[in-house]
Amino acid sequence: MASVPRFSNEREETKGQTQASKRTSLRQFSPLLVAMVGLPGRGKSLLARRLARYLNYTGDTAKVLDISDYRRKHMEKYGSHEMFRADNLPAWRLRQKSFHEALEDAAAWLNEPGHHVAILDGPNVSRNQRQEIYDLIYGQRGFRIMFIECVCEDPVILERNFKDILQYSADYSAMATEQALTDLTYKMAHYKAQYESPSLGSHWELPCPMVKVLDGGFGGIVAHGVTGVKESKILAYISVPKPIQQVIYFSRHGESEFNVIGRIGGDALLSPRGRVYAHALAKHVHTLNLPALQVWTSTLKRTRATAANIHAPQQHLAELDEIFSGDCESLTYEELQERFPRELALRDRDKLKYRYPQGESYLDVMQRLVPILTQLESENNVLSISHQAVLRCVLGYFLETPTEEIPYIHVPLHAILKVTLKGYKYTMETVKMPIECVDTNRAKPSNCLINRTTDEALLTVPAHLDSLSSLNALTTCI
Amino acid sequence: MASVPRFSNEREETKGQTQASKRTSLRQFSPLLVAMVGLPGRGKSLLARRLARYLNYTGDTAKVLDISDYRRKHMEKYGSHEMFRADNLPAWRLRQKSFHEALEDAAAWLNEPGHHVAILDGPNVSRNQRQEIYDLIYGQRGFRIMFIECVCEDPVILERNFKDILQYSADYSAMATEQALTDLTYKMAHYKAQYESPSLGSHWELPCPMVKVLDGGFGGIVAHGVTGVKESKILAYISVPKPIQQVIYFSRHGESEFNVIGRIGGDALLSPRGRVYAHALAKHVHTLNLPALQVWTSTLKRTRATAANIHAPQQHLAELDEIFSGDCESLTYEELQERFPRELALRDRDKLKYRYPQGESYLDVMQRLVPILTQLESENNVLSISHQAVLRCVLGYFLETPTEEIPYIHVPLHAILKVTLKGYKYTMETVKMPIECVDTNRAKPSNCLINRTTDEALLTVPAHLDSLSSLNALTTCI
Repeated sequence: MASVPRFSNEREETKGQTQASKRTSLRQFSPLLVAMVGLPGRGKSLLARRLARYLNYTGDTAKVLDISDYRRKHMEKYGSHEMFRADNLPAWRLRQKSFHEALEDAAAWLNEPGHHVAILDGPNVSRNQRQEIYDLIYGQRGFRIMFIECVCEDPVILERNFKDILQYSADYSAMATEQALTDLTYKMAHYKAQYESPSLGSHWELPCPMVKVLDGGFGGIVAHGVTGVKESKILAYISVPKPIQQVIYFSRHGESEFNVIGRIGGDALLSPRGRVYAHALAKHVHTLNLPALQVWTSTLKRTRATAANIHAPQQHLAELDEIFSGDCESLTYEELQERFPRELALRDRDKLKYRYPQGESYLDVMQRLVPILTQLESENNVLSISHQAVLRCVLGYFLETPTEEIPYIHVPLHAILKVTLKGYKYTMETVKMPIECVDTNRAKPSNCLINRTTDEALLTVPAHLDSLSSLNALTTCI
Repeated sequence: MASVPRFSNEREETKGQTQASKRTSLRQFSPLLVAMVGLPGRGKSLLARRLARYLNYTGDTAKVLDISDYRRKHMEKYGSHEMFRADNLPAWRLRQKSFHEALEDAAAWLNEPGHHVAILDGPNVSRNQRQEIYDLIYGQRGFRIMFIECVCEDPVILERNFKDILQYSADYSAMATEQALTDLTYKMAHYKAQYESPSLGSHWELPCPMVKVLDGGFGGIVAHGVTGVKESKILAYISVPKPIQQVIYFSRHGESEFNVIGRIGGDALLSPRGRVYAHALAKHVHTLNLPALQVWTSTLKRTRATAANIHAPQQHLAELDEIFSGDCESLTYEELQERFPRELALRDRDKLKYRYPQGESYLDVMQRLVPILTQLESENNVLSISHQAVLRCVLGYFLETPTEEIPYIHVPLHAILKVTLKGYKYTMETVKMPIECVDTNRAKPSNCLINRTTDEALLTVPAHLDSLSSLNALTTCI
């Protein structure tokens, strides 16, 4: 996933300078290696991938380098736990080789302009390995470094993590469950025998930040030596425990009066068909019988009305309000083209960064959503009812959509989107409700030049009615 | 200090709704009380005030309520340490009364719309007090709560903290140093006798977040139960240790060719007088002989040239680049008024929130500076060379200028600004260099209406030359 440009002060002429200046940096502005530490099944890989997702979305380009991927490249197929025994010398050499390759790749990746945080995912159980990481990354390359150890004794979390490994690990994809479980138990025992857990706090072995995450964060954290801005941002993210089984639901508001007549923004009421959806949504959600369900909506009338029939605690959040189109609020695309043809063309050219006059860009929306997204990640069974552009940004986060593609994610009206954590990734299912509605999705026109014709500009505008008075005709169709 | 509006999607018609909706919130969106815990001299008050400064600047309206301020209201003058003895019943009642008043005020303040974080500063050494805080804030009022304990055993930090108390505490303002030191030592002993330090980690006594800060953060932190977005933001801030003695230096670039001819933005070179300043600045800085001096500049030519003669490691940061005026870059105010009179009037009307077309607002600049400001706060002897608008935002942070006044802070050319932490506040000294330069400060005109005349719009534009060719004339004046 490409990272979000962090600044709105990008000047064409200084872009090159900025890049170049990053290469001669004081230590506190150098790129950062995050090295995971911990036994298998302690939640390292899930945390590493969640962290990378968060960093990429918030403007720090991040990449996970998984040592076991390197190990698998050197093996035709996974044999057994025997390869993790400390006294299996040929296997130990192979594992060391994989470790060094991943480490070297991480260092090389960090050396590229615009790369900020590499996450080295692997057990890194021995003091020697951690010293090697430190010597190469901090000593030789002059980068920053931070260790995150995952410690877990909670039997419920451990069992869940083991199940995930058996289900999703490439090592066990071709093995029967019973056999895989036995193998994993032995593998764990071999690693335990080699485990030199970093000491707590000020007795930590290396002069760099170290954070211990206890029981997936539910047991708290211990941090020592955190000094940089990125390190403290990472600490804040990993300090909030996140569920290992997670389902979140999303929906756009029901069709609004503005949707029907093709107007953007505003604060319109639901159309008759939108009101039908609100009832159908409530009925569907009640059938699911979700424990401790919460409903988060925007502050606008159309999302509040859509949520109104649902029996659950509700919160209305300005962070979830639709992208603000400023001077262009409440216009149709036809009016936009008539009054602001240059603006419409500029928007089509770069929908991600384009900011409406006195309004917002997708990047602005992505940024204001960050607190809500991190809160959402620590919840279960939230139904979030909001808007097309906002949901594009939200889904872009969970599904790790490349940033440039976020403004074009298809989010239909009258559909419930169920996002589930599976292994280390989120997947989405769409439940379409059989209630008719307009399509509000305007594809990128092929001609985005400022001097294009009106027809070219309006080519992809979805069909809509001309006036509110035609609305009543629709009620009969329901 | 008024807080920064967090969203750029403020719609006039929904402002009321948003305010109202905040009153019926799910627990994770409720206001937060932060309660400090710890013996006197452990750095609680400095941390509380730094945290409030940071929160207010980043959009979470925060207030410190200092229990000792309430105690002082009930006493004509400070007597002695005797009032902190556990067996001094009348004094104990007075201290309990002060504790309850501060706590009630904190709860009432949090209940106001737009208030986010109240920080209750005081020792809160007994389990009973913490239980009372929890019962009122979490139990009765339904707010969130977080405890921060400051533990300090480092003799160097302790000595420095004691000195600060003797110098800045209202209790000791009328007492001779020797006597005050004895009194403080006894006061400490009384508190130690009553101290029930919260247990670590999962044995912590209350079901809410608790963070221990060890040796002012230099000894690391231990956190348990951190779940909310604000709590994790606070954790990130307090996890980075900040010096208790701190001096930071700031300067604008030397006068630029654009300054001389009254143009805004751009990437111009230094004027001849600006180059003289660059030499004078280097000479002055070398005389100060600052240990481990670092220079942080923007990426633009005029700040890099200003720093060029200084012997110290340098970093060029895009975060420190001048406010980007988008379509208005490189124009004079006269040209701005001619080509964009409406924009200039809108900017004069609300300089803080006004965003140049395709450019930035002061709020945008404040936001992009946050990582740099938090990094700066953990440093000493940094000389940061940047620009008028950027330095307004930076100084506004350290000096806690009300947000609306930030765009009007006077930051002269050819002057070195020395910002020093004194007690819990930063103070500023200005060293003006005797090198002539133009004035670039344009005061707010009295008429900010869109239909004002050109003369009214240009009334406060500072004097400048008309063309670059006149520049050479200046060299002779030096």
